[in-house]
Amino acid sequence: MSIATATVNRAHRLRRRPVGGLSDGDLELVEEAIPELVDGQALVRTLVLSIDPTCRLWMSDMRGYMPPVPLGDVMRGLGVGQVLASRRADLPEGALVAGWTGWQEYVVADDTQLEAPFTVLPDPLPAPPAAFLGALGHTGVTAYIGIDLGRVQAGDTVVISAAAGAVGSIAGQLAKGRGARVVGIAGGPDKCRHVVETLGFDACVDHRADDWREQLDAATPDGIDVDFENVGGAVMDHILMRINLGARVVLCGMISQYDAAGAQSEWAGQVNIGQLIMRRATIQGFLVLDFADRFEEAITHLAGLLAEGKLHYDETALDGLENVPVAVTQMFGGANTGKLVVQVAEPA
Amino acid sequence: MSIATATVNRAHRLRRRPVGGLSDGDLELVEEAIPELVDGQALVRTLVLSIDPTCRLWMSDMRGYMPPVPLGDVMRGLGVGQVLASRRADLPEGALVAGWTGWQEYVVADDTQLEAPFTVLPDPLPAPPAAFLGALGHTGVTAYIGIDLGRVQAGDTVVISAAAGAVGSIAGQLAKGRGARVVGIAGGPDKCRHVVETLGFDACVDHRADDWREQLDAATPDGIDVDFENVGGAVMDHILMRINLGARVVLCGMISQYDAAGAQSEWAGQVNIGQLIMRRATIQGFLVLDFADRFEEAITHLAGLLAEGKLHYDETALDGLENVPVAVTQMFGGANTGKLVVQVAEPA
Repeated sequence: MSIATATVNRAHRLRRRPVGGLSDGDLELVEEAIPELVDGQALVRTLVLSIDPTCRLWMSDMRGYMPPVPLGDVMRGLGVGQVLASRRADLPEGALVAGWTGWQEYVVADDTQLEAPFTVLPDPLPAPPAAFLGALGHTGVTAYIGIDLGRVQAGDTVVISAAAGAVGSIAGQLAKGRGARVVGIAGGPDKCRHVVETLGFDACVDHRADDWREQLDAATPDGIDVDFENVGGAVMDHILMRINLGARVVLCGMISQYDAAGAQSEWAGQVNIGQLIMRRATIQGFLVLDFADRFEEAITHLAGLLAEGKLHYDETALDGLENVPVAVTQMFGGANTGKLVVQVAEPA
Repeated sequence: MSIATATVNRAHRLRRRPVGGLSDGDLELVEEAIPELVDGQALVRTLVLSIDPTCRLWMSDMRGYMPPVPLGDVMRGLGVGQVLASRRADLPEGALVAGWTGWQEYVVADDTQLEAPFTVLPDPLPAPPAAFLGALGHTGVTAYIGIDLGRVQAGDTVVISAAAGAVGSIAGQLAKGRGARVVGIAGGPDKCRHVVETLGFDACVDHRADDWREQLDAATPDGIDVDFENVGGAVMDHILMRINLGARVVLCGMISQYDAAGAQSEWAGQVNIGQLIMRRATIQGFLVLDFADRFEEAITHLAGLLAEGKLHYDETALDGLENVPVAVTQMFGGANTGKLVVQVAEPA
């Protein structure tokens, strides 16, 4: 295979830890020479980048689940890429791969760097490359694992926040598949309509409406058995007041709080946990990274549903590496439906 | 056996739901005629009453684990009593019993009332009657179950709030028995000294000291694996910032918040749960009432330790039914060490 070798990389480097939302100057888009490959290295060209809420935590210096991105480093991120040149056998030239590309056009995948593993994607691809960052990637697996940890069963009332988002949209459909009553929470009437009409949830609460509490109460007349929690804040607080005996809260994210993860080592993820005692309920924090041994099971299940037309997935795509900061800001403003990605290049 | 039959009862009736701490007039001590017994009833004389933080929840109208005590009713409470007269076979005259006496001198135990079961205590008693409300009663069993749910194992760092209290003091000793490093949290230097020197905890943090955060950090250099949580509030918040990967928080109580359980249906049990995700940790609310099938196992274990001199237990006793409100106020002020009881009468 003959692919022209690139010599110049463009990368978003973290220059400053954001205070509140991402601001101009927190990231700097730089042009840099790409070093010559040595044995054990491959050059991967980024095709599409995954934009995930967790990026906001990596930019902060809070006590997270991974070390903060050091100031000056290329911003951490997942993507799908294509091997452009290779001096390592496991990453053949031309192969499509998923992994830690970082927010840049090219990455040198060095087999001595444990933190930058890439997985070669199947050939031919059963879905567009971006799906391997979404429904068939880490967000789909997150949904699958969370619904499993929540022990969702027929007859349960399951509440899913960020229901129109990458994880929530899949989680809700999986919960429906188990026979649960599924209530989404999303921002605005359009998203709510989409969650019910297209994704098939039983109801959706618009958390931007003044009467969201009443909407949530009305949508959960029998209380709440499982909360697949992606958002935190006041809505989660209200959910906790409505949990049933033995309820399971699977805590996947708290996106409403991440912009508070600024220069401090804490964030404002305050909720009222009193009802956990009254209802003998559990909050379990989880991260998909811990379930590597179940990725194959999860992706096989999700790919099966997709092939049968039983899983709907949405994608919001922006074009161009330079638009990554715009995408991040849109995500925290709730502008995306489904998986948010940035298209960086087309496969050769 | 010949015991004079009583004709007049004295009882604390709930007249008003407290706002903040218990105030004069919330409870009224009344004198009332004791009705004649009919078949299926026994008259139980209260010997000693258990004063537990949970009483504050029962006085409120929040969404608790039991219905609120209706205004006008005798206040709910556990106690040890003696059967004074009986027209039911399972409660023989003279027997010592433990159960729902309520905050009163006499209770008619009616076998049609499911909510008022009594257990006949062993004869002879292996410990003073009040122990059956403490180390060998519901508080001891609570400690036993909580340490078990927390899956405490050798090498763990276990933090126990209200460490000098009825539950915490037992829980800490059980955790020590499993080989854990046990750090108590208590109010004031005297209690802290007691927790370390007499109860054998490895360290104790004085939450009334200005530097309690630094004390807690210094006492948990390897982070926190298990939090046996009885208190909630700012201390719990700080504990949650120090939890380790896979930490277990067993949520037994949140005494710091109960006085907020006033006329509203919520209380201010706000803590920052963000680290639950980062540390893949769990908060599990539990109530000893759910573990009736393990009471015998727990009490056998605790009685064995007691008989071997391997379990220290403390009691703070006030005298006289009229002093129940004083005891409640002292408890929320942190005045008691170990199990708090009110002595009402001597056994015949």
